[in-house]
Amino acid sequence: MIRNIIFIFLSIIFLGCQEQSQNKIAIVIHGGAGTMQKENMTPELEQAYLLKLEEAVRVGYDILKDGGSSKEAVEKTIHIMENSPLFNAGHGAVLTSDGTAELDASFMDGETLNAGAVAGITNVKNPISAAIAVMEKSPYVLLSSKGAEEFASDIGLEIVPNSYFITERRQNQLKNIQDKNEVSFYDSYIKESKYGTVGCVALDINGNISAGTSTGGRSNKKWGRLGDVPVIGAGTYADNQCCGISATGWGEFFIRNVVSYDIAALVNYKKLNIKEASRIALNKVKDLGGDGGVIVLDKNGDVSMDFNTAGMYRAYINNEGELTVKIYND
Amino acid sequence: MIRNIIFIFLSIIFLGCQEQSQNKIAIVIHGGAGTMQKENMTPELEQAYLLKLEEAVRVGYDILKDGGSSKEAVEKTIHIMENSPLFNAGHGAVLTSDGTAELDASFMDGETLNAGAVAGITNVKNPISAAIAVMEKSPYVLLSSKGAEEFASDIGLEIVPNSYFITERRQNQLKNIQDKNEVSFYDSYIKESKYGTVGCVALDINGNISAGTSTGGRSNKKWGRLGDVPVIGAGTYADNQCCGISATGWGEFFIRNVVSYDIAALVNYKKLNIKEASRIALNKVKDLGGDGGVIVLDKNGDVSMDFNTAGMYRAYINNEGELTVKIYND
Repeated sequence: MIRNIIFIFLSIIFLGCQEQSQNKIAIVIHGGAGTMQKENMTPELEQAYLLKLEEAVRVGYDILKDGGSSKEAVEKTIHIMENSPLFNAGHGAVLTSDGTAELDASFMDGETLNAGAVAGITNVKNPISAAIAVMEKSPYVLLSSKGAEEFASDIGLEIVPNSYFITERRQNQLKNIQDKNEVSFYDSYIKESKYGTVGCVALDINGNISAGTSTGGRSNKKWGRLGDVPVIGAGTYADNQCCGISATGWGEFFIRNVVSYDIAALVNYKKLNIKEASRIALNKVKDLGGDGGVIVLDKNGDVSMDFNTAGMYRAYINNEGELTVKIYND
Repeated sequence: MIRNIIFIFLSIIFLGCQEQSQNKIAIVIHGGAGTMQKENMTPELEQAYLLKLEEAVRVGYDILKDGGSSKEAVEKTIHIMENSPLFNAGHGAVLTSDGTAELDASFMDGETLNAGAVAGITNVKNPISAAIAVMEKSPYVLLSSKGAEEFASDIGLEIVPNSYFITERRQNQLKNIQDKNEVSFYDSYIKESKYGTVGCVALDINGNISAGTSTGGRSNKKWGRLGDVPVIGAGTYADNQCCGISATGWGEFFIRNVVSYDIAALVNYKKLNIKEASRIALNKVKDLGGDGGVIVLDKNGDVSMDFNTAGMYRAYINNEGELTVKIYND
């Protein structure tokens, strides 16, 4: 009898400890920061964004809930946004000055600090998968242009014609910019078309944080311009000991400020929380004349979604399964 | 009489203050970190490296001494190394798996935090000048491949055939690697050929710090591989409020650790000096399995040249005009 009581007592303690050691899961996404304003948005378009953001974040959350890895959650979540014409990534990406799509993506694994990225690719259906493949199936971190496409094809990723990425909306956007004979980078047409990058950060049940970002870059870009997305430390960063980050915005300023790694450094070295760190990093971007946003998820499952533009397409699901989806600054 | 004495007295104070406010100047360079060992080096080759490093660092120092900008000092110093077949940059760069040269370079201006970089270019004689031109003459920070070459040609930089970069030494090196049918990245042939990147950091009389790095990347590289050099924050970083950094080594690890910006963050956020910060950053690289070196110059003109390889081609001239040139770990 006493042995039974002791056994039950120990079992309760054991189960309690298991509960304790159960890591939190959480996922956060962005679909780009920009000048979107409620008065310029139709109810239908707004609804389409909200639904797609919810669909994307739920795909990743369900993977995490089933015990899947943060890597898989990030990849599958970003696929939803890459495959949607709403965002500036994959199908529906903005166009270069030649009217073609040139895509960049990056991924970082917070457990191993391993990373992969592709820059300036034109025919891989899901650039985020190419970035992950660079990490897993090559001895490199960053592959570019034709070489990256050859790699993606060699390892069997889905290859599509460049026309797959091109939508009428982006063609009109490009025409508008080119008709205006781009004189200023502060031009509102350019501002509107500069953003829309997608990104995701997830924390899985094993405490692993992954971060990924995918983009078509900047409308009317030329000369093989690369932004912050393929630059580990600028557009993407992840470290289990700290947090994961994905950025969106005026890429040049995010490169110059090494925004994603700066947030991690502020958390690690100055012991700031992720909201304070994000604000400081975005203020530095603003001080130089740039703007954009960042999503951050720390090792405790806490989320920050900050931006200094009019809005940022964004969503998260926390450890309690609570969903938040937002567009504007509210 | 009293007025004259007062005038002379004030003049002495004024001149003293001028002397006081005169900023220090200093310059530091590297020509790559690697497995070079004294017993494998001929006296003639050793002498050639020492003389070329001295020539390069003196070119930049003379510019600084004449009141020139740190930007000009960095550019002209790197030209000397890019034009020399001794280093893995410009003429004498290592070759891709196809036997061609693909060059990367980056530059950062510590006063404005502006930056420029080129990745995977094959026909611009001095890639460091292309990086500076991206910063000064385009709205972008990072240009790649054919687009970057078009830009360089458009703005009138010197264009050369790819054969200009190719030397017999590098062709033999590539053949050795390919004959050994590259199986391990830890292979000594690959280790030897992986390094040789050149870099320079300078502090001018106005307190402006500039940093630049130029490389042919990694021997036998393929798939449009880019290393840390075109990645601001990894291979190059500069901030007048802190320091300037140029890195050399196994680029993938320098990207994953955001090495250059990490050193600046350790100085800014943790108040470490540049020697402590360099050591920590290189230890992180080592922990992941990589190696290499960094040169750092802070706003006071203090210099750090640290590495965790057998040696690093390196030199500096401090504010007193004292020259140091070294190769091995001594």
